[in-house]
Amino acid sequence: MRDVPLITLLTDFGDSTYPAQMKGVIHSLAPHARVVDLTHSLPFADIRWAAHTLLCSFEDFPPGTVHLCVVDPGVGSCREVLLLHAANCTFVAPDNGLLWPLWDRFSDSARAFHLREYQGFCRSLSRTFHGRDVFAPLGAWIAKGVPLITLGEPIARPKESLDLPVPHVDGKVVTGSVILVDPFGNLITNIRPSLLPGSIARVRVGGVVVEGVAESYLQWEGRGVGAIVDSCGLLELFVFKGNAADLLRVGVGDLIVVDLA
Amino acid sequence: MRDVPLITLLTDFGDSTYPAQMKGVIHSLAPHARVVDLTHSLPFADIRWAAHTLLCSFEDFPPGTVHLCVVDPGVGSCREVLLLHAANCTFVAPDNGLLWPLWDRFSDSARAFHLREYQGFCRSLSRTFHGRDVFAPLGAWIAKGVPLITLGEPIARPKESLDLPVPHVDGKVVTGSVILVDPFGNLITNIRPSLLPGSIARVRVGGVVVEGVAESYLQWEGRGVGAIVDSCGLLELFVFKGNAADLLRVGVGDLIVVDLA
Amino acid sequence: MRDVPLITLLTDFGDSTYPAQMKGVIHSLAPHARVVDLTHSLPFADIRWAAHTLLCSFEDFPPGTVHLCVVDPGVGSCREVLLLHAANCTFVAPDNGLLWPLWDRFSDSARAFHLREYQGFCRSLSRTFHGRDVFAPLGAWIAKGVPLITLGEPIARPKESLDLPVPHVDGKVVTGSVILVDPFGNLITNIRPSLLPGSIARVRVGGVVVEGVAESYLQWEGRGVGAIVDSCGLLELFVFKGNAADLLRVGVGDLIVVDLA
Repeated sequence: MRDVPLITLLTDFGDSTYPAQMKGVIHSLAPHARVVDLTHSLPFADIRWAAHTLLCSFEDFPPGTVHLCVVDPGVGSCREVLLLHAANCTFVAPDNGLLWPLWDRFSDSARAFHLREYQGFCRSLSRTFHGRDVFAPLGAWIAKGVPLITLGEPIARPKESLDLPVPHVDGKVVTGSVILVDPFGNLITNIRPSLLPGSIARVRVGGVVVEGVAESYLQWEGRGVGAIVDSCGLLELFVFKGNAADLLRVGVGDLIVVDLA
Repeated sequence: MRDVPLITLLTDFGDSTYPAQMKGVIHSLAPHARVVDLTHSLPFADIRWAAHTLLCSFEDFPPGTVHLCVVDPGVGSCREVLLLHAANCTFVAPDNGLLWPLWDRFSDSARAFHLREYQGFCRSLSRTFHGRDVFAPLGAWIAKGVPLITLGEPIARPKESLDLPVPHVDGKVVTGSVILVDPFGNLITNIRPSLLPGSIARVRVGGVVVEGVAESYLQWEGRGVGAIVDSCGLLELFVFKGNAADLLRVGVGDLIVVDLA
Repeated sequence: MRDVPLITLLTDFGDSTYPAQMKGVIHSLAPHARVVDLTHSLPFADIRWAAHTLLCSFEDFPPGTVHLCVVDPGVGSCREVLLLHAANCTFVAPDNGLLWPLWDRFSDSARAFHLREYQGFCRSLSRTFHGRDVFAPLGAWIAKGVPLITLGEPIARPKESLDLPVPHVDGKVVTGSVILVDPFGNLITNIRPSLLPGSIARVRVGGVVVEGVAESYLQWEGRGVGAIVDSCGLLELFVFKGNAADLLRVGVGDLIVVDLA
């Protein structure tokens, strides 16, 4: 069977026509591409949130997928456009830190490029909507097989880095933080239980102590805040059929302390 | 022309990346499948609402469609996964009652299966996201033509039933209830006018009496609450360019009384 | 490569299953069509907003695209269905003014039709949901190449017109108005700088005076309300990482005054 190129869109465009306009341009250039909305509900201009979201989901897509990540408060200014080939996929974003964690993780094998010029390949270049004018045509062309080297200048590393908080291990105490809150109020942390030097005895968060780790949400029915390993392998705090973020008044950046057994 | 397998997604995942991650897995296994979001805005863990929503929409999709219905508060616990072949389509959901009304309606010809084991066919099995780890690959494989019998064990009937409210007819008085409220505040009831033993003279709802049934929304302009037969054949209460649910303070489960002529 | 027919959906159906049900019907009739949601978040029954939204986005889609525009408060009444071939695309909408501006712009070359009858081509005709029963099958058939002349009766012009506000130029002063507010609170106006008889010196809006026009959003960081030419070529008022509509308490219909240099 013929290959179907897949393009994902990750933006902070909200409930607007902007994602559809990107798809119009993509389908004009690559009629057979398939486009999946990763999400358009990122908090506006929140590069860190975008980076975490991408890290938690890109592995669910097939090799060859082109991920267009348009969180771009610098649109129309002189910021560079970054093309990154890593993990058998291509990521395209403003060079504003969004792709730094991926670069950091795959730097052994990744290749990075700065878009050489983009006046040439788009119908017109607006000052406000490079999602349509730059990223959409780039995505279409990459999905059709245009080599990155013909689009961009190889670079040693992305220009802008992004410091993501890393958990701190001190003996039997691990201190991490909340990196994302999902629409259900589940608190996703940067603590990856499979990498800890011991099993989790308890989790302290927002003045609450959670004993043990749940095997399922349902197991914690009626028991208040629970801890679980989420679908991305990260420690997550939740309330069964409730909202942990609201209950604990905890959000992105707040501390999580884990006691190891 | 080659057949294009169609997969729909019906979840309570809200405005998250979870539907997109399901699509990533589906397209990894079935690149040519087409995926349609039925809705992801079901009230959280509301199996009854999910069942009604499915009943009101599955007939608009072509034969062969695979409907993935993931309202799954028991994710990661020992609940079964139900595969149902009915009305020339395949429905996949947790065996938690969601598909019971379909089984009930088509039990003469439907075939039901419990997923035999799912450790084998997914990349990995998380504790929190079987939409991605179980339902998405199942949908892809069914869409590609894998027979249900190779995936599941035939069962006589689903394990969990679901009692949906049924209208009561007493002479010229029919008592039903609201089963869904759409985003416009229209009240969808469980009363199917085409099955009533007479035409509708008036409808009593939330302290208001509605005389007759409208031929169109527009016909009721400036006339307050109206009754109409909705696109699913059910009696619906509405306010032209207004919100009947808010105006009447009526919601799911509230009573509707119809006087027949 | 074979052509992939593209169909867009523009509705006020909000966060419901109605768009998905339209897609079910479309894919039943045209399995290979690709469907893009332009937006379903139009303000309810706001024909003017729908018209502006379409004008700002249809040009991003490839020739041959079928745009289904279902803002239809008169559904089920005797309003006509309008088929419009213009700018190498086909537009389908109720004849309620929604497509008038397109007709007006392309009347030299456009061809307009009223749907001849629709009892024949749909499974059934509900009183409330012609998006599914009329517009979706129409879109599928047009996308598959059925000529408009076999579907509709040629007409000299659409029945219902729509007066869109036009900017007024008086010497060096241009008076326009806000026509759309996007989800970020950006105020889109009906003033097209490229058509003005001079460059913009300042913009007066909601009691604020904006000096000059920004080259990028970022350039206006920390400078309050800015003016920029948006992606559709229109004058837009914005606040960098803020919400101009909220800050200025300005909305659709409010006046914008431009002083030319």
